[in-house]
Amino acid sequence: MQIASAEWSGIEQEIAQSAFEKAYRREVEAVVAAVRTRAAHVTELEDVWRLNDFLSARRHEIDGKYDYQYPVLIFVFAQLIKEGWLQLDDLKGLADEKLVKISALVRM
Amino acid sequence: MQIASAEWSGIEQEIAQSAFEKAYRREVEAVVAAVRTRAAHVTELEDVWRLNDFLSARRHEIDGKYDYQYPVLIFVFAQLIKEGWLQLDDLKGLADEKLVKISALVRM
Repeated sequence: MQIASAEWSGIEQEIAQSAFEKAYRREVEAVVAAVRTRAAHVTELEDVWRLNDFLSARRHEIDGKYDYQYPVLIFVFAQLIKEGWLQLDDLKGLADEKLVKISALVRM
Repeated sequence: MQIASAEWSGIEQEIAQSAFEKAYRREVEAVVAAVRTRAAHVTELEDVWRLNDFLSARRHEIDGKYDYQYPVLIFVFAQLIKEGWLQLDDLKGLADEKLVKISALVRM
């Protein structure tokens, strides 16, 4: 179900980039907030290492997820919608074909 | 410069254990405080990953350092004194021979 970069029009690329950045900003804000909340409740070394594990996992996950490559972008968007960082509405303006594919992936 | 466990009297073992735990508690408190301070200043993802790196480094260091094995204990105590988690006074009651060795290591 790959869609190569040539199939994304200029306006679609702008919409995609903007949605991608919006999701990223939202997730970053959530991570920052989670770090502050968790850190405020740290009292023992075990809590510290738990925070360390949490951060390592988020880092691995975020590094892997925010991959702005047109051939995989509909999968990325589907995942971001599933996780709540994006709504289908944020992608309004993309070709119907893409929106249908993304919606199908979200329901999977 | 190893001193086997047989060379630590019962009372020395008590002093050593108590000093070891004191240093550990102090360092844990410092790490917990550092985590809270750093986390309060986190605003971007880069700050989060920097905190993660800091925690990973501290974990590695602390896991390696707090090794309660009599043959290496005078090295451990020397390092804890160098780093400020312990004072020579906390080891009062150990045989002079050990205190002299620890002092020598601290000055190295």
